[in-house]
Amino acid sequence: MSQHKYTIGVDFGTESGRALLVEVASGKELASSVYKYSHGVIDEALPVKGKAVRLGPDWALQDPEDYLRTFKRSIPAVLRASGVDPADVIGLGIDFTACTMLPTLADGTPLCLLPEYRRNPHAWIKLWKHHAAQPEADKINATARQLGETWLERYGGKISSEWFFAKALQILDEAPESYSAADRLIEAADWVVWQLTGVETRNSCTAGYKAMWSKREGFPREAYFAALDPRLEHVVDQKMSRSIAPIGQRAGGLSAQWAKWTGLRPGTAVAIANVDAHVSVPAASVTEGGRMVAIMGTSICHMVLGDREQLVPGICGYVEDGIIPGLFGFEAGQSGVGDIFAWFVDHAVPPEYHAAARKRKVDLHRLLEAEATKLKPGESGLLALDWWNGNRSVLVDVDLTGVLLGATLATRAPEIYRALIEATAFGTRTIIEAFRDHGVPVNEFVACGGLPEKNKLLMQIYADVTGLELKATASKQTPALGSAMFGAVAAGKAAGGYASIFDAAQTMAHLKKETFSPNRAAQKVYDELYAEYLALHDYFGRGANDVMKRLKHIKANVRNH
Amino acid sequence: MSQHKYTIGVDFGTESGRALLVEVASGKELASSVYKYSHGVIDEALPVKGKAVRLGPDWALQDPEDYLRTFKRSIPAVLRASGVDPADVIGLGIDFTACTMLPTLADGTPLCLLPEYRRNPHAWIKLWKHHAAQPEADKINATARQLGETWLERYGGKISSEWFFAKALQILDEAPESYSAADRLIEAADWVVWQLTGVETRNSCTAGYKAMWSKREGFPREAYFAALDPRLEHVVDQKMSRSIAPIGQRAGGLSAQWAKWTGLRPGTAVAIANVDAHVSVPAASVTEGGRMVAIMGTSICHMVLGDREQLVPGICGYVEDGIIPGLFGFEAGQSGVGDIFAWFVDHAVPPEYHAAARKRKVDLHRLLEAEATKLKPGESGLLALDWWNGNRSVLVDVDLTGVLLGATLATRAPEIYRALIEATAFGTRTIIEAFRDHGVPVNEFVACGGLPEKNKLLMQIYADVTGLELKATASKQTPALGSAMFGAVAAGKAAGGYASIFDAAQTMAHLKKETFSPNRAAQKVYDELYAEYLALHDYFGRGANDVMKRLKHIKANVRNH
Repeated sequence: MSQHKYTIGVDFGTESGRALLVEVASGKELASSVYKYSHGVIDEALPVKGKAVRLGPDWALQDPEDYLRTFKRSIPAVLRASGVDPADVIGLGIDFTACTMLPTLADGTPLCLLPEYRRNPHAWIKLWKHHAAQPEADKINATARQLGETWLERYGGKISSEWFFAKALQILDEAPESYSAADRLIEAADWVVWQLTGVETRNSCTAGYKAMWSKREGFPREAYFAALDPRLEHVVDQKMSRSIAPIGQRAGGLSAQWAKWTGLRPGTAVAIANVDAHVSVPAASVTEGGRMVAIMGTSICHMVLGDREQLVPGICGYVEDGIIPGLFGFEAGQSGVGDIFAWFVDHAVPPEYHAAARKRKVDLHRLLEAEATKLKPGESGLLALDWWNGNRSVLVDVDLTGVLLGATLATRAPEIYRALIEATAFGTRTIIEAFRDHGVPVNEFVACGGLPEKNKLLMQIYADVTGLELKATASKQTPALGSAMFGAVAAGKAAGGYASIFDAAQTMAHLKKETFSPNRAAQKVYDELYAEYLALHDYFGRGANDVMKRLKHIKANVRNH
Repeated sequence: MSQHKYTIGVDFGTESGRALLVEVASGKELASSVYKYSHGVIDEALPVKGKAVRLGPDWALQDPEDYLRTFKRSIPAVLRASGVDPADVIGLGIDFTACTMLPTLADGTPLCLLPEYRRNPHAWIKLWKHHAAQPEADKINATARQLGETWLERYGGKISSEWFFAKALQILDEAPESYSAADRLIEAADWVVWQLTGVETRNSCTAGYKAMWSKREGFPREAYFAALDPRLEHVVDQKMSRSIAPIGQRAGGLSAQWAKWTGLRPGTAVAIANVDAHVSVPAASVTEGGRMVAIMGTSICHMVLGDREQLVPGICGYVEDGIIPGLFGFEAGQSGVGDIFAWFVDHAVPPEYHAAARKRKVDLHRLLEAEATKLKPGESGLLALDWWNGNRSVLVDVDLTGVLLGATLATRAPEIYRALIEATAFGTRTIIEAFRDHGVPVNEFVACGGLPEKNKLLMQIYADVTGLELKATASKQTPALGSAMFGAVAAGKAAGGYASIFDAAQTMAHLKKETFSPNRAAQKVYDELYAEYLALHDYFGRGANDVMKRLKHIKANVRNH
């Protein structure tokens, strides 16, 4: 046992899980290890023997054993790679995709592991991007509006089909026997912590952002659930819990069995579970209001803290204690960002650029970025609406679609690539302005995730479009670092960790020295282009011309006949 | 000398000239020969010795000797290839791009062939697509509106920078010495006929469509020209002619010198010159009202005949005797059609489709057509505005730009390819509806040019979108056939030709047996999509949101600084 103490964060992503071993005093990352889920995203057929069990469109499931294997493989791997003495590892934190939920027995056994439920898709884990519960989400929203449920406003006026009760109601609707057999309905985040510690807890982050819970009002009232479906009236007391643990607490100690499987010491502090995006906020050094954290990857999740309740139309939601204990955590998002650039690169770039990228031995994104960097703002004459994957904030409308305007016979691929980046920056600006207009200040922008790491042009455009100074996290694995930080907080100061996440952030979270400041001339042009973006955003997004919805309707009709 | 008589049509295009030898009695095409202009389109520097003479942006010139070489090479070639006795060739007709004009001396010598003017760009032939006279066109329009000139309405309210007086005024503005030295300003179409026959004539087609002349009112009054520029007051009498010959007449007989150069007999009847698009109308069997002829290539030229004067807003113009003697010829157009498909194929299709086309040994257009044919109308969810090259009719606005709407992460190249074809079909429908709404019936659609030949999907989409039966010309060289027909008319009935173009069309013009009829189900969906197209067309094109113009303005500002 040395003077140095360590903590481990485990980040459960969509395709894989990652462990990161970090020094408590400095935040220095010593080792990381990734386990790729053997069944990945299950979206075609269940991984079962015998006759195939096919899944419907928009289904996305996972296998709980993949999560357990993540612990069993990646924790021993980081211990080995770092050479750290397990006795010096004081804490363990986890973060997860959300809402990713499953039905279990009272002892935590996933229903899908029981032979009699193995071939029932509703017994499996519904991954965050399981989108087959839209009818249930529609019903949840309509019923809430009808009964005047006040919690709806906390979520910008609409809840998503990805969320907890939409998924729960889908199980009840389509597989009532599975619903009955489930003693518990639980977030996978909380389930893995339960496995490690033997203690069932429910974290305030997923409860607040995904299950309509709030610290002051609790869950929606039973009369509301009864109005959805009489069998759902007592769902909270029957299958969930009203005891919600604020993040930053200790869930329990590592069990003897899991100590054996991971190589850690029994009793090692395990933190209350958290969500990948939200756990990144303190890892991006943000534990106070005014500084937006954006997790930038295939999509963007925007988070900002505030010290009081504010209704902001069109955001995903706000939760007290949802990100940092004692503060309100506001969340918004863009449903397509890196995904749109990837679409463009995969499906709309002619061979000459592919050949040039091969010749220069760079990724096609890098080649297009280099070409697009040569252009000045406004030089292409192009303007796009970044709705290739709908609009999550502030219009909250999955039926909106992408637009490219201003094309001429002289338009070339790097110009379109740049216009798409600009469009996503304009989308972020609508979110920042929505927050500001409703009393939530945003004065700084801290980026983390895969995109800022890779694309400097994107960072500069976001700075020029938002007029904010852009910073980026030093860590390439911000969620895992955040989880490790919460592990150190769960261990507590006496054990060599921290008394609070505020203290942990001060020493463990680091930003890069390189920042991106708005260029005044570029800002001026982007202010003009943003005004054009906003006019089209409102025209197509706020009902003046619902052509996108009608095209989708025609498309659906044509495909069904 | 045999019983069979023949006629030759020479079609002067943008890059080359083509001669076609045709049997008078049947319209049977016996031989054709193409001469590629040695200097093609001169748009960078004059083809002169010594220090380079660079041309400005949007300039496009040609060399008159390329036209003469066309006759000298292609006519002997078709005589040789067909084995026809020159004594049996009774007539010769020509058609030309327009407005393609040049300054000459009184004897017809092009100014650019004089050593002292050889290095002066304004002494050369300004090709139809010379677009550098926009300031002059703006002045022509503004002055006409100011003075209330009634002829402006015949051209849909606006004349183009491509037209005769814009080009003439540019010479006066920028090279007054060339303007002074020019005894004549003349369409290249009329100039080549002058060369062949020694007789200077001016045809009613270019005079009417490109030089604001009408049979009833003549040219604009001198006071108008004086208002444009005092030096221009007497331009018509000084450098042109008020004697305009209706198409269908004989211009003169082939000179001895040209008989020697071509191998034809001296005195062979030469027809009054014509324009490539307009001469195609009788070659498409159309000599009466109600049947639209569309020349479909990089752009589309739409022509329809009528028996009375009608003001149709947003069309290119109408001219009495302009297409067929005794009738009004209405013309409209789309500035980007095949050009847009070519842009897409060259600049927005990923390598996998290029590879598949190579593998199947087909052109990429054919591959995308085959893939797009598998889609049903409305299935892609996409809608485009076909303004990659501005809008010629009915908005008459070069500053409009292309739009693609409805894109998702699942959008693929064949869907966009189809959406672009559909957009051009919707553009054609706006033109047809403009004609109908203003008393010019359109009941049938006859297509000619390169596109209908190649793309059956396009033909079917145009039928489904317009609700009209689509027919196509049997000839692949409609303009040259039309010119040959006019050659037979110039020769006259007594010489074995025809008394009129009506008679010539009855026996010489043929349509393909295969026609394209509207599919009722497709028509229904396209009616819905057209309503959406029209809403966006009016929103972006009629002033509700001038975002396209503002983006162009920003782009111009950025590029100039």
